[in-house]
Amino acid sequence: MTVASNSREPQQERSRRTRERLLRSTIDALAADGWSAATVAAVAERAGVSRGAAQHHFPTREALITAALEQVFDDLTAASDSEIAGPDEPMSSARVLAAVRRIVDVYTGTEFKAALQVWAAAASDPALRKLILPLEAKFARAAHQRTMAAMGVSPDDEKGFRLVQATLDFARGLGLADTLTDDSARRALVVDTWCEQLAVALGVDEAA
Amino acid sequence: MTVASNSREPQQERSRRTRERLLRSTIDALAADGWSAATVAAVAERAGVSRGAAQHHFPTREALITAALEQVFDDLTAASDSEIAGPDEPMSSARVLAAVRRIVDVYTGTEFKAALQVWAAAASDPALRKLILPLEAKFARAAHQRTMAAMGVSPDDEKGFRLVQATLDFARGLGLADTLTDDSARRALVVDTWCEQLAVALGVDEAA
Repeated sequence: MTVASNSREPQQERSRRTRERLLRSTIDALAADGWSAATVAAVAERAGVSRGAAQHHFPTREALITAALEQVFDDLTAASDSEIAGPDEPMSSARVLAAVRRIVDVYTGTEFKAALQVWAAAASDPALRKLILPLEAKFARAAHQRTMAAMGVSPDDEKGFRLVQATLDFARGLGLADTLTDDSARRALVVDTWCEQLAVALGVDEAA
Repeated sequence: MTVASNSREPQQERSRRTRERLLRSTIDALAADGWSAATVAAVAERAGVSRGAAQHHFPTREALITAALEQVFDDLTAASDSEIAGPDEPMSSARVLAAVRRIVDVYTGTEFKAALQVWAAAASDPALRKLILPLEAKFARAAHQRTMAAMGVSPDDEKGFRLVQATLDFARGLGLADTLTDDSARRALVVDTWCEQLAVALGVDEAA
């Protein structure tokens, strides 16, 4: 029993690692080579996993894609949780700027570029759209809630609620602008300009 | 001579109309059915044009796609020119709101959804990217310049320049949010919030 149980552990661990490698390769394949490159067979090859093992974990492309998006969203949400300032810290323009920069980093990262490929494919694929809409809604809620908390905006502040929504739309637009070219120099200036304004709007600073 | 010249006219006119129909069908195919649906053969069928005639106008898919994007950008730019308020009119929050709504309409329209499919494809296709980057840069410049003019922001106003850039990024993000669901109800509230803040930032209104 002890031996069997010991030998089962590494196998579960191996299986977990294989799954993770496949999900990571799915994100990389989507971001680098686009939607058509992210099939179970191509991702298995990219991950150095046999096609049979890949299909054991993900029998269909849809299962692979949705699991990869779930993983991305969970990772991003967990990362932001660990970075949110204490709720008792006062609001400040530095805190607003840090929160905006963090969410802009999310929307200009590899994960967003991968998600964009899935969105574009889902725009003309109702079955795929049905699978990813709940994931996307869950992520949008989490991103909004965490950005509110990171800035120190009260959940009851209706204007703050809308301003954070606008900020997420802004960040999404910056993500799209970064898809075809490196937009980082322009982006830094535009982010600073919006953050100054946002701090004023949230009542953190006096108008310049 | 007169007869020959007269009979050439309708043929040129027919050819121009066929070209327009093909370009319109390309936009519709991209927006409704995605990148993979926008081939010369599929677009010809959609437009009710023979494959041979379509290939006469557009020998390659790349030629068809870039011509369709050029047409879209020219149409959008011409439409915005006709709507810009006189340069001597004073800035006002109503003028800012109208300009933002107009550019948000552009980024949430069928043309943007079509362009998004091309962007997503170009992200992993260097040859396509090289073709559409100049078009995209030209459109971004025109959209920025016209939105500045529509709001009445002086070309020398550096803060205004950045705020209009941020507004275009915001509009692009709203366009992306509208890809998978009808986001119009949420969007109306967020646009109003953005515009209130933008008017304050541009010095049009007193802070609320």
